Amino acid sequence: MSNEKIPYKIYLSEEEMPKAWYNMRSDMKNKPAPLMHPGTHKALTAEELTPIFCEELVKQELDEDTAFIEIPEEIREFYKMYRPSPLVRAYCLEEKLKTPAKIYYKFEGNNTSGSHKLNSAIAQAYYAKKQGLKGVTTETGAGQWGTALSMACSYFDLDCKVYMVKVSYEQKPFRREVMRTYGASVVPSPSETTEVGKKILSEHPGTTGSLGCAISEAVEVATKNPGYRYVLGSVLNQVLLHQSVIGLETKAALDKYGIKPDMIIGCAGGGSNLGGLIAPFMGEKLRGEADYRIIAVEPASCPSFTRGTFAYDFCDTGMICPLAKMYTLGSSFIPSANHAGGLRFHGMSTTLSQLYHDGLMEATSVEQTSVFEAAEQFARVEGILPAPESSHAIRVAIDEALKCKETGEEKTIVFGLTGTGYFDLVAYEKFHDGEMTDVIPTDEDIAASVAKLPKVE
Amino acid sequence: MSNEKIPYKIYLSEEEMPKAWYNMRSDMKNKPAPLMHPGTHKALTAEELTPIFCEELVKQELDEDTAFIEIPEEIREFYKMYRPSPLVRAYCLEEKLKTPAKIYYKFEGNNTSGSHKLNSAIAQAYYAKKQGLKGVTTETGAGQWGTALSMACSYFDLDCKVYMVKVSYEQKPFRREVMRTYGASVVPSPSETTEVGKKILSEHPGTTGSLGCAISEAVEVATKNPGYRYVLGSVLNQVLLHQSVIGLETKAALDKYGIKPDMIIGCAGGGSNLGGLIAPFMGEKLRGEADYRIIAVEPASCPSFTRGTFAYDFCDTGMICPLAKMYTLGSSFIPSANHAGGLRFHGMSTTLSQLYHDGLMEATSVEQTSVFEAAEQFARVEGILPAPESSHAIRVAIDEALKCKETGEEKTIVFGLTGTGYFDLVAYEKFHDGEMTDVIPTDEDIAASVAKLPKVE
Repeated sequence: MSNEKIPYKIYLSEEEMPKAWYNMRSDMKNKPAPLMHPGTHKALTAEELTPIFCEELVKQELDEDTAFIEIPEEIREFYKMYRPSPLVRAYCLEEKLKTPAKIYYKFEGNNTSGSHKLNSAIAQAYYAKKQGLKGVTTETGAGQWGTALSMACSYFDLDCKVYMVKVSYEQKPFRREVMRTYGASVVPSPSETTEVGKKILSEHPGTTGSLGCAISEAVEVATKNPGYRYVLGSVLNQVLLHQSVIGLETKAALDKYGIKPDMIIGCAGGGSNLGGLIAPFMGEKLRGEADYRIIAVEPASCPSFTRGTFAYDFCDTGMICPLAKMYTLGSSFIPSANHAGGLRFHGMSTTLSQLYHDGLMEATSVEQTSVFEAAEQFARVEGILPAPESSHAIRVAIDEALKCKETGEEKTIVFGLTGTGYFDLVAYEKFHDGEMTDVIPTDEDIAASVAKLPKVE
Repeated sequence: MSNEKIPYKIYLSEEEMPKAWYNMRSDMKNKPAPLMHPGTHKALTAEELTPIFCEELVKQELDEDTAFIEIPEEIREFYKMYRPSPLVRAYCLEEKLKTPAKIYYKFEGNNTSGSHKLNSAIAQAYYAKKQGLKGVTTETGAGQWGTALSMACSYFDLDCKVYMVKVSYEQKPFRREVMRTYGASVVPSPSETTEVGKKILSEHPGTTGSLGCAISEAVEVATKNPGYRYVLGSVLNQVLLHQSVIGLETKAALDKYGIKPDMIIGCAGGGSNLGGLIAPFMGEKLRGEADYRIIAVEPASCPSFTRGTFAYDFCDTGMICPLAKMYTLGSSFIPSANHAGGLRFHGMSTTLSQLYHDGLMEATSVEQTSVFEAAEQFARVEGILPAPESSHAIRVAIDEALKCKETGEEKTIVFGLTGTGYFDLVAYEKFHDGEMTDVIPTDEDIAASVAKLPKVE
C-alpha cells in the first residue's frame, strides 16, 4: 500500500477496531511497583481495594500478566458511537513548516467530553453497572474527566456524583452545565455534604478547594453509601489499559498503509493519554521487535518526570489514598496559579514511571507561552482548536519536525492530540492579550515538597 | 449491500467525496425570484453586485442553469481536513424510543467552527483570494459564521474583519477568542469604525446592537476599502450551492448501503443547512425520479415559513441590502429576547421559499422548551451535545419516530445535525434551572412588521 497517497484522515472500519485492550505490564521485565497501604506499607490486596473500586477494575488494576483483555461487547458498541478516532496526516502543518518530516496525529477530541477520557469512563461505568451498583463518585478539576464520566453514566443509567473543585465550579460554569445535561449531580468542593468537607470548611472558611480535597470527599461518599464506588480518570493501571485503545487504533491505521513511525510524542499529566497511545509500540519495544523514540512532554511548571524523584508517594494532596511508586514532585507540590494548561498532577502513572526509570522512554518539559504559540500555529493550518494539554505534544512535534528541516531527514512523527480547547478560552484570551507568562518552580520549591515524601523502606 | 449491518457511522472515502456542488435551481421549473434593487425595483445585475461581492460568487449567485459546478481543487483539499462528515445511524436513540423507525443524522459539528458554516466560508474565502483581494468583512451574531470565516481566512491568509453584535461580543467572549486565535479582528457593533456605526451610536447611545446594524457596518467597510468584499453565511443562493456538499455526501452514503429515506428533516433559519442537506433529494423530486417528505423546522418564536408572507422584503433590518422575494415576517420583526436557540432571521432563502410556495416541501414550528428536551434526550443516548439550532430538527425527528412507534411503520428518517452546543451552555443552564419559557409572537406582532414590507409591484 505504500505507494498509495495517504489520506488526510485514516479511519478504521468497525471490523478493524480493537476487540481487546493491551496490558503493557505483561511485557515489562521490571513490573511497576504495587500500590502500598499508607499505614502498613504493605502491597494492597484485592480485598482492601474492593470497598473503594469496582471488583472487575481491581482485577485489572492488579493483573500484571494477561497481555490482552477482551473489551466487553457493550463497551465496544459505545466506542462505535465516537470511535474509531481519526489518525490525521498533518499535510497542512508539514507544508507550513516546510519540513520533510511526515507528521500524524491521533485526534481524540471528536466527542462531547472533548478528550480521550471517555475511553476509560465508559469502561469504568460499565463494570460498575455490571456489579449492580447504583452509582459512582469522582472528583474533577477543569472538568474533562467529570464530563466524560457523566456521559458514560448517563448511557448506563448510573447515578454520578462529581465533586468539582470550587474555583473551577465557579469559573467554568459551562463544564458544569454539560455534566448536568448528562444528569450528573455536580457539587462544589469542599462542601457540607461530607465530613471531610465540613472539617476543611471549618478550618479554612472561604477556601476555593483543591483536587486533593475533592478526591477525599468523593472517596468518603463512595465508601459510606452502599452501592457506590469511587472512580478515577488517570494514573491507575486500569486507566492505561482502557486507553490502550488509542494506541491500538493508531498502530492498526499505520500498519494499513505500511507506515513505521520513528517517534511517538504525547503529553503527560497523570499518564492516561500517553500510556494509552504508546502501549502497542512500547510492547514491540519491550519484546525487542521494533524500536521507537517515545517522548513524554510535560509542563515546565509541573515537571514530575524531568525534575521529580522516583519514590513512593501519596496520589492525593489530602494524603488519604494509597502510596504509589512514581516520579513525583511531592504530594504537597502545587503548580503556580498562573499555569493554565492542565497536566497539574504532582506524580505520574507507576507504569510509565518504571518505563522511564528503565530508559525505555524520554521526557522533556516545555513552557506554556511556547505551548500556546504552537497551539495557535496548529489551529490556523489544521483547523482544530487544540486543548492546552494536547498542545504540549504539538510543541515538541513541531520542534522535531523543524529539526528534520535542518537535517533533511524524512522522519515519521506521530503525536497524540488528546482533545479540544473549547472550554479553555480564558487561557487563550490571556495568551492573545500578552498576559501569559512562564513560571518555573525553583529547585528549593521542589526540594521542599519532596522532603515531605512518606518514609518507606 | 442491504443485508449487511449498517455501521454506526458511514464515512465516505476521499475518492467518494463530491467533486462538484449541485445547483438545485437548475431543476426548478419556477425559479426563485431575482434579488431586486431597493430603489429601482429592477433585478440586480452582476455589475451592480460585484462592488459588494466577489466576482465568482456573483456568477454563482445568478446562475440558474448549471446543474453541477466543480469544487475547485484547493477547496476539496480543505474539505478533506474535516470532511466527509459522518452519516450516523442513531441506533441508541432508536432503542431508547423503542421505535421501528430507522434514524440517520448527518453530523456537521466535527470542526472547530462547530457547524456546517465552514463549508461555505472556505469557498467564499477561496474566491476572494483567487480574485486577489486583501480581505473580507462580515457580521456575526452568536458567532458560528464568524468563527467559520475566520478559520477559512486564516487558511488562505486573508484579512478578516468581523462585526459582532455588541451584546454577543460581551456575552460570548469565548467565540470572540476563537476568532482571534484564527487571526480575525473582531469589532463590537455598533462601533466608531464606520459612519453608520457612529450615526447609530449618536442616535442610540448605549445600544447593544443588532444583526442589521452589524451588516450595515460590514458592508460599508467592504465597499469603502479597496481590496475588500462583503461575505454572508446564509440566505444567498451561492451559500446553498456550497452547502449542497452536505446533501451530496448524505445521498452517497445512503446509496452505498441501498437506503432510501422516507423523510428528510432540517432546521431552518436563513436556510443554509436545510438547502444544502435536501439539495440532491429535492433534485430527484423536481425531476420526478423519486419522492421524499422534506420538512423544514423553525422556532415558534420566529416562524417565517409557517406564519410569514411570501413577498419582496429587505434582507437586513437596516434596509440597505437588496430586496429578496421570500417568506418573511418583515425586516423589522425581532424575535423575543427570551428566544435562545438561534434561527432568528426574519426571512428565508429565496430558493427554499419558492420550493415551499410550490408545495415541494413542508414546514413546521416548535417551541424552545420542547427543543431543549429533545436536545438533552439526544445528548444522553447519542453522546453529542447538539446546538440549539440543530435540536429543532432533533425534536421533529423524535416526534416522527414516535408516530412510527404508534403505527408500527419502519420509516427511514434522515435529519441534519448542524452543529454542537459548546457555546450555548447559558441556554442549557436556563433550561436546567427551569427558567426557559416559550414565547410565541401574536398575530398582531407579525401583522405590524409585515405591514412595513416595501411596496413592490
